[in-house]
Amino acid sequence: MGPGVIDSPLVQALDRIATDIDAAFDALLPVPDDARARLVEAMRYAAIGGGKRLRPLLLATTAEMYGVDRGAAIRAGVAIEAIHVYSLIHDDLPCMDDDALRHGKPTLHVAFDEATAVLAGDSLHAFAFEMLAEPATSADPFVRIELVQTLGAASGFRGMAGGQMMDLVAETSEFDLQTVTRLQQLKTGALLGAAVEMGAILGRVPVEGRAHLRGFARDIGLAFQITDDLIDHEGDAAVAGKAVGKDAVAGKETFVSLLGAERARTQAQVLVDQAVAHLAQHGREADVLRALARYIIERDH
Amino acid sequence: MGPGVIDSPLVQALDRIATDIDAAFDALLPVPDDARARLVEAMRYAAIGGGKRLRPLLLATTAEMYGVDRGAAIRAGVAIEAIHVYSLIHDDLPCMDDDALRHGKPTLHVAFDEATAVLAGDSLHAFAFEMLAEPATSADPFVRIELVQTLGAASGFRGMAGGQMMDLVAETSEFDLQTVTRLQQLKTGALLGAAVEMGAILGRVPVEGRAHLRGFARDIGLAFQITDDLIDHEGDAAVAGKAVGKDAVAGKETFVSLLGAERARTQAQVLVDQAVAHLAQHGREADVLRALARYIIERDH
Repeated sequence: MGPGVIDSPLVQALDRIATDIDAAFDALLPVPDDARARLVEAMRYAAIGGGKRLRPLLLATTAEMYGVDRGAAIRAGVAIEAIHVYSLIHDDLPCMDDDALRHGKPTLHVAFDEATAVLAGDSLHAFAFEMLAEPATSADPFVRIELVQTLGAASGFRGMAGGQMMDLVAETSEFDLQTVTRLQQLKTGALLGAAVEMGAILGRVPVEGRAHLRGFARDIGLAFQITDDLIDHEGDAAVAGKAVGKDAVAGKETFVSLLGAERARTQAQVLVDQAVAHLAQHGREADVLRALARYIIERDH
Repeated sequence: MGPGVIDSPLVQALDRIATDIDAAFDALLPVPDDARARLVEAMRYAAIGGGKRLRPLLLATTAEMYGVDRGAAIRAGVAIEAIHVYSLIHDDLPCMDDDALRHGKPTLHVAFDEATAVLAGDSLHAFAFEMLAEPATSADPFVRIELVQTLGAASGFRGMAGGQMMDLVAETSEFDLQTVTRLQQLKTGALLGAAVEMGAILGRVPVEGRAHLRGFARDIGLAFQITDDLIDHEGDAAVAGKAVGKDAVAGKETFVSLLGAERARTQAQVLVDQAVAHLAQHGREADVLRALARYIIERDH
């Protein structure tokens, strides 16, 4: 990504969140001195040093807008990233998407084995909720329980996991644009929405004050997925760090197959403009969120 | 189980908890009218109508000793059972124990498919924490967050999932009695301990007042596992409702292989006596827990 693609405060924020999340996973997942060592090594392999950390960045940037302590935001960021990482581990399994490459390195079941991958995913899943429940995340139990509720709802069968199920069904069904949109809102959008929502919860923003943030997240979530479809359609596996061209092979309808590449690209741009408009009430403190929205459709991986 | 095997109040309590947990899963998991239907059907297939519901029974019986409302105990019981069921679904997968039979019916990946089984397990996992986080479980956020923390710690890599990892390693290692004991304390004991602990949390018993309950759970947990090993060693698949004789085939050390059947049986009896002794401070209100401790080593499945 050249200097013209994304602006410098965003580059700094991306660097900073990657460093902070890696450091937090490293500190929170020490390798035990017994037969569980292999499990924690697997969790660390999947969790440390990979990915753009978009969800923690959304969470921490939103939290910062409301004056939240960085340490609390990073703990909640680790929790949501742990959910994201667990979902990727299970998604990559042979019985699911059967992917061998993730973030440019072998997927967990390839580097370790399938059983360890299932357990490491399950362990990161439980770890996320443990993180949120501990007093270090917030002294206020109302804040902690709302974080748990928000992340649980976003990741469970009504959210992310439900979207993944729809994605499995998509391989053998003819989905229309409305159904694909719903699928993606659940599969990817629910967790991105939870990220900004959790930042606002840490900032003690009441429910009614979060509507514009949820609107922002909904729009960038869809723009993000359309861009993913474009990357899968046109991308280069070496740059993407994962296999591309898979949707067409699987016979899945995507935004690109339904709209065509050109209209899909236009739609993503409209969504990003709309997302930025949701932030009108905020000043410079929302600049990173704005830059992030633009970056989401300009990235190539 | 004949009338001499377990006494009547326990039979009633087992019947009642099975009915209540089935009804709660049924009410809490309505099948949606979209492509997620198959996921929820899979969750229901695994969660409804199977198993002895030992964990919810331990939780609800402990809660009742401290005057907790039955509805709250059932919600928390559904949460811990959802964790137990998800762990069985993932444990049964071809890449794990590769079991085709569970509670006398085809395992989830056989009845549905592997991908759906992975997702249904993940969905029940998230559902457990969602359950606990909702105000319907307790109006007090301190109670809810402590429930989340307790269940998260018991089921994650420091608890159940860590024990499952040790169990995988056991197939290729020579574990001694101490390591097998530790493995089982994590794999089975952690969640049984969480069950009584969660009942006490709902009953607002302070941490220092729960030591005897944790001691009770630790002892019945080990007695439970020794009995499982005896059932695997001597049992009848038709009665057990699952494959037996698997430990010997897998070359795993068990309490039976390390102690011999006779000493293992004696050890289980000693543990049950010890468990019952932990309840000395309680009167008749702990009779179901006492009967349950005895039942655990007398069952044949």
